[in-house]
Amino acid sequence: MREVAIVGTGVTKFGELWDKSFRAIGIEAGIKAIEDAGMSGSEVDGVYFGNMSSRFINQQHIDALIADYSGMATRNVPAVRTEAGGASGGVAFRQGVMAVASGMNDVVLVGGAEKMTDMDDAGTALIMDSTADAEWEVSMGLTLTSLYAMIARRMIYDGIATREEIASFAVNAHKHGALNPNAQYRKAVSLETVMRSGPVAEPLGMFDCAPYSDGAAAVVLVPLEHAKKMGVDYVKVSATAQASDTLALFQREDITTFKATTVAAKEAYKIAGIEAKDIDVAEVHDDYTVGGIMALQDLGFFKKGEAGKAVLEDRVSIDGEVAINTSGGLKAAGYPVGAAGVAQIVEITNQLRNRADNRQVKDAKYGLAQSVGGTGSAVTVSILEAI
Amino acid sequence: MREVAIVGTGVTKFGELWDKSFRAIGIEAGIKAIEDAGMSGSEVDGVYFGNMSSRFINQQHIDALIADYSGMATRNVPAVRTEAGGASGGVAFRQGVMAVASGMNDVVLVGGAEKMTDMDDAGTALIMDSTADAEWEVSMGLTLTSLYAMIARRMIYDGIATREEIASFAVNAHKHGALNPNAQYRKAVSLETVMRSGPVAEPLGMFDCAPYSDGAAAVVLVPLEHAKKMGVDYVKVSATAQASDTLALFQREDITTFKATTVAAKEAYKIAGIEAKDIDVAEVHDDYTVGGIMALQDLGFFKKGEAGKAVLEDRVSIDGEVAINTSGGLKAAGYPVGAAGVAQIVEITNQLRNRADNRQVKDAKYGLAQSVGGTGSAVTVSILEAI
Repeated sequence: MREVAIVGTGVTKFGELWDKSFRAIGIEAGIKAIEDAGMSGSEVDGVYFGNMSSRFINQQHIDALIADYSGMATRNVPAVRTEAGGASGGVAFRQGVMAVASGMNDVVLVGGAEKMTDMDDAGTALIMDSTADAEWEVSMGLTLTSLYAMIARRMIYDGIATREEIASFAVNAHKHGALNPNAQYRKAVSLETVMRSGPVAEPLGMFDCAPYSDGAAAVVLVPLEHAKKMGVDYVKVSATAQASDTLALFQREDITTFKATTVAAKEAYKIAGIEAKDIDVAEVHDDYTVGGIMALQDLGFFKKGEAGKAVLEDRVSIDGEVAINTSGGLKAAGYPVGAAGVAQIVEITNQLRNRADNRQVKDAKYGLAQSVGGTGSAVTVSILEAI
Repeated sequence: MREVAIVGTGVTKFGELWDKSFRAIGIEAGIKAIEDAGMSGSEVDGVYFGNMSSRFINQQHIDALIADYSGMATRNVPAVRTEAGGASGGVAFRQGVMAVASGMNDVVLVGGAEKMTDMDDAGTALIMDSTADAEWEVSMGLTLTSLYAMIARRMIYDGIATREEIASFAVNAHKHGALNPNAQYRKAVSLETVMRSGPVAEPLGMFDCAPYSDGAAAVVLVPLEHAKKMGVDYVKVSATAQASDTLALFQREDITTFKATTVAAKEAYKIAGIEAKDIDVAEVHDDYTVGGIMALQDLGFFKKGEAGKAVLEDRVSIDGEVAINTSGGLKAAGYPVGAAGVAQIVEITNQLRNRADNRQVKDAKYGLAQSVGGTGSAVTVSILEAI
């Protein structure tokens, strides 16, 4: 298989974008990515697109919609939509990498988008199109938030993390989000603010949960050998891996570890020929603060029981031991579901290209992105490398 | 890239399967395919799954659900769900072929399923999660059926096919469906029955439209070189291609041809090194009879204006010039949307392995499957070859 490079990135503002449609933001991100690559849309020969729920916009066939509104349908360029809950964008990226690596495509646009705020009740939509198990969890009254709350309770009960440590993940997120001009929330918050935020599913409060968001992100992939000749900044895709776990949480041996993360990470490190300690900057899936803490452990950045302390001690911010969620993450940058996994790749790429402005991590060589569906039912882990 | 073979197929009964859940039928098809390949599920290292609408079963994250209930989540096997309207299964098959061809996977299970009859009103669900353009078509009152009715009117107006010729596609479909033990409708019908069926969107009547169905289908893919050593009947995947077109019908230059079909077919014939006349048996996407007539023309089996006549003259049945929809097609075998594109591959594989029983096409060497999303907004064309 061929080695693959990222040569362009694009992202919209994340937030409540009432003046823009789903198709408008999807195309905005795509055009930005193509322009950033110094290319023309007419060079793209394949599209992969992550999108979670049709219920937000009453539209299926997002593959065709994106091919159409990006002008690629006039050249009949094939487009593929992937859906894997919160990992929809991560899966799209992995499929795009596979398409270029295999030789099936030479220039692939990978995008992701979600438009969640156009409807009255996104919360109900998320229950009706659930990424938790509809038959065994949702029918019993469980939501994704209450499932993560159970995980948090167990983490606290087992002494893996304290409530304060879990809450501190949001403090780090908002600290970084304040530096990101595209973030939904650009305000630092104190630990006290997070701790005192209104309960959603105890122990998790409002500030432990990522928001509903509109937004889109995109990257352009080409073979590494092509990238070298293009005269643009690029990064190498050193690895991309994916793993599954049971859909329902109750079937796991251990709910304080997402085994799909550990398996995908192990494979990704092996493919890239590096170890967890080599990662300088990472975007991890913090739809809930507790998920962020778990990610730091499951990815091998910290031993189990030590991640929360590291976050609380401010050791994962931009100049920390490993810089975590410099974009603000899902929590502060926003969580347009299908876009999230691709926006992570955008942030890591720009960190490795030295283009992260006032949130730049110094001398970053290796970056990692982790995208999670449901309660860890599907996880993608990708490793990028500065060239 | 490696050459790819199909070594196992599985399909459930299609119909109103009120006693079986989505997950039950998905797994039934998968297990049948794995058993047919003489393999164990523990050999599968990747899953691709076509499914259209979460609204039927209130469940997203179908990738994880299938990985889980097939037992593959215990080994953390990655699973990918594709959605491309009616082409969801066709796209899953193409991605699965790519995964094996690229070397990313060695044994891929490709499946597709839809459970449409568990809810009161599948029709409304199909409008709310539309594969037509929600903003420019559905909002104006258009449904997929009325869009196909416009195509039929234009076909008749332009003299490309008569009403009788269009209707005759259903006669051929039911003639074959009567021979397929898994078909939803196993009764031959007369042209008069089709012509007199209650109007749905004129000129299309009830018998011009594929039904709502429950069902699932699956195939097992391995590298061709591995297949040769397995001691099972297998067929070669000679080509798989995909093309896009505009989401909305009004933006096309010509609505009596699906350009995505012509483009994908041209590419598939080129890859396989054959011509349309070399195809012995084909499964084409007849969600509406008029779509079937268009397919026969767009795939190059007949010149434009001549397909309808050929169907009416019974020249596309099992011992005809080219055997079309020997399974009964979407019209008579049934149309569980996400399963359809995979079920086509199952039928063609079994024809080429001489396992189609009383509907066997004699000496079939090349078979083709065409899967369509929306009004031709995405089309996959795959060519299989008997070995």
